[in-house]
Amino acid sequence: VGPEALSLWESKSTFTSFGVFFLQMGWGDLGAFGEPSKETPNLDQMASEGMLFLDFYTANPLCSPSRAALLTGRLPVRNGFYTTNAHARNAYTPQDIVGGIPDSELLLPELLKKAGYINKIIGKWHLGHRPQFHPLKHGFDEWFGSPNCHFGPFDNRALPNIPVYRDWEMIGRYYEDFKIDLKTGEANLTQIYLQEALDFISRQQTSQQPFFLYWAIDATHAPVYASKYFLGTSQRGLYGDAVREIDDSIGKILQHLQKLGISENTFVFFTSDNGAALISAPKQGGSNGRFLCGKQTTFEGGMREPAIAWWPGHIPAGAVSHQLGNVMDLFTTSLSLAGLQPPSDRQIDGIDLLPAILQGKLIDRPIFYYRGNEMMAVRVGLYKAHYWTWSNSWEEYSKGIDFCPGQNVSGVTTHTQEEHTTLPLLFHLGRDPGEKYPLSFASDEYQRAMERISVVVQQHKVTMVPGEPQLNVCDKAVMNWSPPGCEKLGKCLKPPKSDPKKCFWPH
Amino acid sequence: VGPEALSLWESKSTFTSFGVFFLQMGWGDLGAFGEPSKETPNLDQMASEGMLFLDFYTANPLCSPSRAALLTGRLPVRNGFYTTNAHARNAYTPQDIVGGIPDSELLLPELLKKAGYINKIIGKWHLGHRPQFHPLKHGFDEWFGSPNCHFGPFDNRALPNIPVYRDWEMIGRYYEDFKIDLKTGEANLTQIYLQEALDFISRQQTSQQPFFLYWAIDATHAPVYASKYFLGTSQRGLYGDAVREIDDSIGKILQHLQKLGISENTFVFFTSDNGAALISAPKQGGSNGRFLCGKQTTFEGGMREPAIAWWPGHIPAGAVSHQLGNVMDLFTTSLSLAGLQPPSDRQIDGIDLLPAILQGKLIDRPIFYYRGNEMMAVRVGLYKAHYWTWSNSWEEYSKGIDFCPGQNVSGVTTHTQEEHTTLPLLFHLGRDPGEKYPLSFASDEYQRAMERISVVVQQHKVTMVPGEPQLNVCDKAVMNWSPPGCEKLGKCLKPPKSDPKKCFWPH
Repeated sequence: VGPEALSLWESKSTFTSFGVFFLQMGWGDLGAFGEPSKETPNLDQMASEGMLFLDFYTANPLCSPSRAALLTGRLPVRNGFYTTNAHARNAYTPQDIVGGIPDSELLLPELLKKAGYINKIIGKWHLGHRPQFHPLKHGFDEWFGSPNCHFGPFDNRALPNIPVYRDWEMIGRYYEDFKIDLKTGEANLTQIYLQEALDFISRQQTSQQPFFLYWAIDATHAPVYASKYFLGTSQRGLYGDAVREIDDSIGKILQHLQKLGISENTFVFFTSDNGAALISAPKQGGSNGRFLCGKQTTFEGGMREPAIAWWPGHIPAGAVSHQLGNVMDLFTTSLSLAGLQPPSDRQIDGIDLLPAILQGKLIDRPIFYYRGNEMMAVRVGLYKAHYWTWSNSWEEYSKGIDFCPGQNVSGVTTHTQEEHTTLPLLFHLGRDPGEKYPLSFASDEYQRAMERISVVVQQHKVTMVPGEPQLNVCDKAVMNWSPPGCEKLGKCLKPPKSDPKKCFWPH
Repeated sequence: VGPEALSLWESKSTFTSFGVFFLQMGWGDLGAFGEPSKETPNLDQMASEGMLFLDFYTANPLCSPSRAALLTGRLPVRNGFYTTNAHARNAYTPQDIVGGIPDSELLLPELLKKAGYINKIIGKWHLGHRPQFHPLKHGFDEWFGSPNCHFGPFDNRALPNIPVYRDWEMIGRYYEDFKIDLKTGEANLTQIYLQEALDFISRQQTSQQPFFLYWAIDATHAPVYASKYFLGTSQRGLYGDAVREIDDSIGKILQHLQKLGISENTFVFFTSDNGAALISAPKQGGSNGRFLCGKQTTFEGGMREPAIAWWPGHIPAGAVSHQLGNVMDLFTTSLSLAGLQPPSDRQIDGIDLLPAILQGKLIDRPIFYYRGNEMMAVRVGLYKAHYWTWSNSWEEYSKGIDFCPGQNVSGVTTHTQEEHTTLPLLFHLGRDPGEKYPLSFASDEYQRAMERISVVVQQHKVTMVPGEPQLNVCDKAVMNWSPPGCEKLGKCLKPPKSDPKKCFWPH
C-alpha cells in the first residue's frame, strides 16, 4: 500500500467491502469497449462512474486456472491449476477431475475472514468438486451455485447432471431442478443469482459486517442462456440477450449498494476469466473486438479482458488506466484495502493496484501468458514477445475447432506448436493490437525491446517453482454422483468403479 | 422535415450553421468506438455531449466518390464519380484525371448560398482540379487547401507537386512551401488548417452570417503527418500522433464555438470518407475495429464509419443511434435545418436524419455498397447481402497489396470477382459484425431476409439512371502544372503534350 492509499484507508472509520464480477465475456462485448450494438448501458455507466482498465489480463486463457489465480493471487503454474500430461496444454476442472485447489493455497476469502469479513460466492466455483475442495473449506461462508460448468443435460448414467449447492449441500441439479432449455436458450438462472446477491448485500448492510461477494456466474458460457424477459431483445442473438441480462443485473446490484448507502464503502471490480470463446460464435460466443483469436489461446483475444473498477467517492469518474493489470491483482489489492498483508511465505504474482486506481500511477510490471506448463508469451510495456505460438492442432482444426475464425496471421496463428525461444516473435501492441505485424528481427527496435524483455523472462524462469500439477488425473468415479445433501433429495447416483487415468487435454 | 423538427427550427429566431469534419479515420480509431489506447478525449467528449451513430456509412470505399456523394447527396454512380473502364473498380481523382464534379450537379454549398450562408472548405477538395471544377465555382466562398492528396515529393518534371490554394489561386505547393518531412512524419499542416477554421468561425460570428464549414483535412491519409508537439505522443506511433492532433483540433474548434456562444446554433457532424487504409497499417493506417477488411472494399471495414452529431441544447447528451445513416444524409439534413428543400428534379439518396437525431426515431432505409459501376452489397435492417465479393486481384495481392491483412474468410475475401447475384451471401451484422459466418442458404432466416432485400434491390436497380462517368480518362497534360496564381509565385510548370488515355484502376 502506498502512503496515500493507506492514509485514505485509515482515515475511513468504516470497512471496505468487495464485490467482484467475474464472467466469461470478451474485451469487445461491452459498449464501453466498442461493441457496435452498445447493449451494456449499466456496465458503460459503471465505467463512466469509475475507472476503465484498457490493458487488463486474465491469468490464463481458460476458466478454472483463471479463477484459481484470482483467488490465490498466484499464477496457475504455481497454485497447481495446470497439467503436465502434455506440453502447453490448457486444462480445467471437468467433473471427472481428481484434483482441485490444494489446502496449502491461501485463498482471498480465507485471509479476509481473519479481518472479520463474511464471504460469499455466487455461481461457478470451478476449483474442484470433491469434498476437500468445497469453497466453504477454503474461506467462503456462503455459496450458491455449481462446482462445474452447466454442461448437459446428461442421462445420470454415463454422466450425472451438475449439482447446484446452497452452502454445504446440493439443493438440486441443472436441467432437473434448475431448468435450462437448450432449444430456446431460456433459463431463469441469472435472475436467481441476482436475487442471491441482493439478499446477501442487504443482510451484510444490516449486520454492518464487511463482505466479499464473488459473483461468478456463467450465463455467457456455452450453452448460453437468458431469462424470458431478455430473450430476443438484443441485436446479437442469444449471446447478446445473456449479456443484456448480466448487464441489467450488475446495474441492479450497483443501484442496491447505492440505495443502501454503502457504495462508498464497497470496492467493485468487473472483469472476465478468459477471452470470448470464438469456437461458439456467433450464436453462443462473444467478441474480442480487434484482438487476435480467443479463449484457449495466448494471443490478446484469449487473455486481454474488459475491466472496470468502481468505488464512488474514491475513484474519479470517467478515469481511464493503461496500467498493466491482471486478475491476480484483485487478491493483493483487496488485501491492501482490508489493511492486510499478503502471505510472505510464497510468491504472489498479483500487485497492489491502489496507486494506479487512486493516484493514476503506472507501475512497471510484466504480464505472463501461460498455456499449461509453458510460458508462451510475455508483455513488457507495449511490447509482447511470443516464445511459443500455437492456436490448436491440425487434428482438432480439421474437425472444425477454430480458435481464430476468419483470422490467419502467417507464422503466428500456427497449428503446430512453434518454438521461438531463441528469437521471439515481437509485437508492438500500441501500433498493432491485433498481433499482425511482427517486428523485424534485424531492427533496432527489436533489439532494444528484447534486451529489456529477456531480463524479465530470465528472472521469472530462474525463480519459478512450479506447484504440484492438479489437473493431470481424471476418474469417472469422482464425478458428481452423490454430492452432500443428495440423500435428502433422493438424488444420489451410484458411481462407477474407480479408474484413474491421465486426463486428455487436446488444446 | 418532421413537424417537430420544423417547429424547432421555426421557433429559433436565429440561423443554424453547419460544421462537417470529414476525415479518413476508421471505425475503430476513436476511444468512443473501442480504440484500446483511448487517445481521442475530445472526440469522445463530443460523443458524450452529442449522439453516437453506430451504423453510419460512407457512400464509397474511396475518398473522391465519398466526398462527391456528401456534397451532392447522391450516390457516386449518379453524380459521375465512378468509372466504367472495368467492372467494379474504385476510382478517384489523381492529378492526371480529366473529369471532375459536373456543372449539372447541385452541391450543398450552392444551395445553402441561396439561403444566405457563407461556405468554406478547408483541406482536400478532391472533386477535380481543372478550372471548371474549382470549389468556388461550385458554391464555396472560401477555400484553403489542396485539390488532391498530399502525395509527393515530386520532381516537378514527371509530376508537379500538389498546389495549396487560398480561394481562387494557389499560394504554394506541398513539400516546397508547405513542408512535410516524410522521414520524421513532421508537418505543421493540421495546425494551419485548425487556425483557418478558428479564424473563419470568428469572422462569421462577427458578421452574424450563417455558415457551412467543411473541414476535410488529410493528416491521417498516407503519408501521415503530425506537428512537432504531437510527434511521439501516442501509443500508436505516427498514425496515432496524427489522430491525437486531429482530436485536439476538433476539441479546439468545438470550444471556440462554445466560447463565442454559438454552439447552440451550430450543427456539427464528424465522420469519415472511407474505412481505415489497412494497406498502410500499422504505421500509416488506422483501424476498423472488429470489421472486415478496409478501404477499397465493400466489407464493413471499408465503409462503416465513426459518426458523431453534436448540437448542444438540441441533441440529448450521450445519445446513441442505430439509425442506418450515410454521408449523403448530411446533404439532406443540412438543407432541412436551413429550411430548404432538396432538389426535386433528380434522385437524392440522402435522407433527413432530424427525426433520428432529435426524436430518436428509426427510419427504415437501405444502405448500398458500390464499387465503381457495381452494386456489390446492400444492407437492410441488420442483414447485409453481398451480390459480389472481391478484395483485390491475385496479381495485386501477390505484390503485397492486402486490403484484409490477417483476415481471411473463405469464399468472402476473394481475390477474383465472385458473382452471387442469384444467391447472395447473407450476413446478420448484429450477431456477426465481422462478416465471418454467411447464413445457410437453406435456412428460413435466409429466405425471409432475402425476400425483403430482393424487393429493395429490384426497386433500386429498376430506377437507377447512372450519371456520365467522370473517372474514365487520364491525361498527364491536365496535372497541376500551372494552377491559377502560379505566375505571381514563379511556380508555373510546362505541361507535356496532351495524351488522353483510359485511366487504369487496378482495384
